[in-house]
Formats: sequence, structure tokens, C-alpha cells
Amino acid sequence: MYDVVIIGGGPAGITAGIYARRAMLDTLLVEKFGLGGQIALIDLVENYPGFSRVEGSTLVQRLEEHADEIELDVSFTEVERIEDRGKEKLIHTTDGSIIKTRCAIIASGASPAQLGIPGEKEYIGRGVSYCATCDGFFFRDRDVAIVGGGNTAIAEALFLAKMVRKIYLVHRRDALRADKILQERAFKNEKIEFVWNSVPEEIKGRETVETIVVRNVKSGELHEISVDGVFIFVGMKPETDFIECQKDERGFIKTDRSLATSISGIFAAGDCRDTPLRQIATAIGDGALAASSAVKYLEKRASTQSS
Amino acid sequence: MYDVVIIGGGPAGITAGIYARRAMLDTLLVEKFGLGGQIALIDLVENYPGFSRVEGSTLVQRLEEHADEIELDVSFTEVERIEDRGKEKLIHTTDGSIIKTRCAIIASGASPAQLGIPGEKEYIGRGVSYCATCDGFFFRDRDVAIVGGGNTAIAEALFLAKMVRKIYLVHRRDALRADKILQERAFKNEKIEFVWNSVPEEIKGRETVETIVVRNVKSGELHEISVDGVFIFVGMKPETDFIECQKDERGFIKTDRSLATSISGIFAAGDCRDTPLRQIATAIGDGALAASSAVKYLEKRASTQSS
Repeated sequence: MYDVVIIGGGPAGITAGIYARRAMLDTLLVEKFGLGGQIALIDLVENYPGFSRVEGSTLVQRLEEHADEIELDVSFTEVERIEDRGKEKLIHTTDGSIIKTRCAIIASGASPAQLGIPGEKEYIGRGVSYCATCDGFFFRDRDVAIVGGGNTAIAEALFLAKMVRKIYLVHRRDALRADKILQERAFKNEKIEFVWNSVPEEIKGRETVETIVVRNVKSGELHEISVDGVFIFVGMKPETDFIECQKDERGFIKTDRSLATSISGIFAAGDCRDTPLRQIATAIGDGALAASSAVKYLEKRASTQSS
Repeated sequence: MYDVVIIGGGPAGITAGIYARRAMLDTLLVEKFGLGGQIALIDLVENYPGFSRVEGSTLVQRLEEHADEIELDVSFTEVERIEDRGKEKLIHTTDGSIIKTRCAIIASGASPAQLGIPGEKEYIGRGVSYCATCDGFFFRDRDVAIVGGGNTAIAEALFLAKMVRKIYLVHRRDALRADKILQERAFKNEKIEFVWNSVPEEIKGRETVETIVVRNVKSGELHEISVDGVFIFVGMKPETDFIECQKDERGFIKTDRSLATSISGIFAAGDCRDTPLRQIATAIGDGALAASSAVKYLEKRASTQSS
């Protein structure tokens, strides 16, 4: 039986792993795809203190090296559900195995939210994408639409602007939510045309995407824009279906100030929890705190058992 | 008038500065001594994710470079008090100047707690120290006592063991609080002798420290140990005297989940606040969140004024 199983290998999970190992806990980190979480999808990271400007892939490598150095065990498998048996938690994986642990830290992150409009699902991989770093190269010298106005949307627009011919940035309001520094860069970029006060209604095409239909929320008018691709950055959906505990209405896990969930012995860290800010910096802070709280939980349990 | 003044240049303050600058706020960071905060006093940092093993001074340099890169203004002066005039905060400095700002982030950290025993104050700089990295070299091939049993005490003991002849580690309990990985290294180190269940009563000497008197808390017996130096690592005291807001009984600033203090427009981040864990990782997370909350506060204020 493990002392702690960490679910998710993004910055929160890796940090929790580093801290758990430093506390000499028998630790396993379980990850579905690859280490690094959303950092692996980022072109350039400029807001993780200590690295003024680092490629996402390089930062992932540095985190992996750190995890290796402290001998953090990693298992690549997907968690189906967590069974709470009090002092023992059973982690059921989709490949049918069961991992036993004294406590667990959920750092499963969040994944891109979908628009839910006609054509979106149909054209995933054929023009619809949620990751410019992954798919941008396919659209070099083409026209694309980007849906969204937050940090991710604008950072991805700036990244895509280096390769595509033209970007229509479709945003439902008349101002962006992104950091001012990113906004300024986007406004200066001649490849980016802003389509304000507009929401996407449908994505159309034959084999691949050919147009996006947008509706102006003020006038109600529909407008069809010819594009070869549609990149969607409209927020995140937490990866928390595998755990039954208290969550907010969007599925983010509720935690107390020690990052304990509503289930004793289960903690949550990073983007998957109900937190006011989702950044690498905050995920790192969460990972350290969740592991520290897990250590205290195990120590308390050990002292209760021996008395 | 500044948009935001950040008080304190440790990891929390620098991160808040990076985030405030990315939001293109008129930002000033005020620091009493030098950038880096307590990191500057640490020999080796092994738990800041992305740096498996980095000298404190190197990490400070990396944070300074990051602050430079984003053109963060830094002023080296000490804050005496903050005057809250609602939409304007006046930062009074000890050199008599007044800095005006719309909001403030307190990231002033904490400093080593004192024992409060006879001889302690008298021998500061003449054998009594709160920083092994700063003063360890003066005690090469000498005998020293360390008071404390937490992470700092043990990390500093391992650092000092490289240069001193012998270390008496005086701890009030019969077990350490430090991370297990540090405990194991300390137990293996032949230069470290543990003086369990003991509290220091007095530090004695002539020109410089010559002995430390310790009392065994179980037997009540007094015991005098010959040492040339006494290093004290018994926790932290927050640097929060300059601000009148809600604090806990030890002086740590109370914050809500957005890191707002009890005073509207003033936020707190890092070691100075009432937080369950004080680490570089958590300070970084706090800095990002406090700046993000300050941005939201300023935006809300601006929209209220214009309507």
C-alpha cells in the first residue's frame, strides 16, 4: 500500500510528488498522457518566476528532471474512480487494476471547454482545434478563427500569427479579458482582426472546415467568415468525474484552507479545484501545500493508531 | 500615484511584481535590504520545482533577472506605516517620504524569532546567529549549538556540518519536525549530536559566546555545553508592525481566499500572512494571486468611477 497516490502529472502533481518524496512517503504519481500537464501545450512561458522566458517543453523537461532527481515513481494509466474505504483508498484504473493507498492528492487539472455548437465535434482534427502549439503548423499561410478573449486565446493568437495568414478573433464582448501586456501585443499585430460582440453559431465545411458562422449579440445579425481552421479557447472544464466529493456547480473540487476535500485523506491541488486563479505559479503552491497536508494527515493517523 | 505598491522583495513580492507588470500596472516594489528575501540566506534550495538543486544566491539572481526583464521598478527603502485613505493609500517610509498608491500588496515576509533568554541579544554578532549561510564560515573547526528541530534548523545543521567541528542540536522534544529526508541525513552525520528534550536557558561568555546552558524538560536538570557559537532556528515572526489590519495572535495578516486583507485595496502574500505553509513554492503562488486580485480590484474601481 502506498502512503500517497497523486493523480495528475502537471505542475501541481509534480510539486506534490517532490514534497511527498522529501517527506520520504511511499509515493506514486499516476498520469494519463505525459508529464507537464497544460505546460506541454504552451509555446512560451513568461510568468513562472525564475524563468523569464522559457519554452513550455523546456519547463516540462526541467520539472521531469526534478521528479527524477527525487526518485518519484510515475505510472502512466488512467483513473476510473476512487473508492473511499476510510483508512484505505482504492484507485481503480481503466485498465482494470486497483492501486491501494493511505491517502490521495487529486491534481488532475482541467481540459479545454467546448462550445457545443453544430459542427464543432464533427470537425475536431479536421479544422477544429483546442491547441495552437499542437496544431498551428497545419494552418501555415491559411486563415483561421480564434474563439475567446482571455489569456489563453490571446497568447495562442500571437503564437498562430507567426505562421497563419490571417486571424479572425471572435469574442462575445467588446473588450478582452487577457493581461494588458498581451492585449497590447495583439492590437499591434496586423494579422489579427477582431470580431467583437460576436458568438459562434456553427462551424461548416465539407471534408474540412470552410466557414464559421457568428452572430452579433447586439444586432442579432449572422455573419459567415471563410476560414480553414477554428481554434477554441473559452475556458476550462475540470477533470474530476472519477471522484465523488463536494464540487462547485462547474465540477471544480471544493477544498478547505489546507486543501483537504470533503473526503478525509483526499486532497486537491491546482486547476481541478475551486480556486480563484489557475496559473503554473498557483499550481506549484497548491502542490506543496497539498503534500504537506497529506504528511500531517498520515502523521496524525499513525499517532492515533499507536495510542 | 502608483496603481500598486508591493512591500517586500522576496519570492512573493517579486512574483506579484511580475504579474502586476504583465497587467501593465504602474508598479513599485519597495524593499528594505536586498531582493530575494529569505532565499538569499539559504545555502541550497531543492524544493522549488524546475530547479532540482540550486544555490539560494543563484535563485535570487534568476528572480532578479525576471524582474528586470519585465521592467519592475524597485526602491530600496523601509516602510514605517501605511495610511489608508480609501481610494488612496499613503506609504510612509522611514526616510520621511510618502508614496501614493491606489492599492498595495504586503509581502514583507517574516524574520527569525528570538528565544528571549539572557545572553541572546548581548551576543548577537559575537557568537549568536540566525543565519548559517551568513555566519557559518566564522565558526569553521569550532563547536556550535543549534537550537530548533524544524526544516530550517536541520538544513542549517547539515550546512554547518561541512565546516564546523561539532554541532550540539538542542531540541525541546524527542523527535524532529523537519522533513524525513533531512532528518535521515542529520542522523547519519557524525558531527551532529542531538540534545533531546532540552530548552536553552542562558548564553554565557566573556567577549564572545563560551557556553550555552540548557535545561532538560523531563528531569529539570541544567547542563552547560561549551560552544563558540549558537545558531537559533525556532520559527518566524512576521514583519507586519507597519500595517494596522486584522492579524492572528502572532501578528500574521489574515486574508480571504483572494488574499484581500481586512482593508479594502490592501492584499497580503507569502510568509507575512496567516497561511498553513511557508515555502518558496507557496510564496510564488500567493504573489500571483495577490497581483491578480489587485488587478480585479482596480478594474472594479475604475468601472465604478466611470459609471
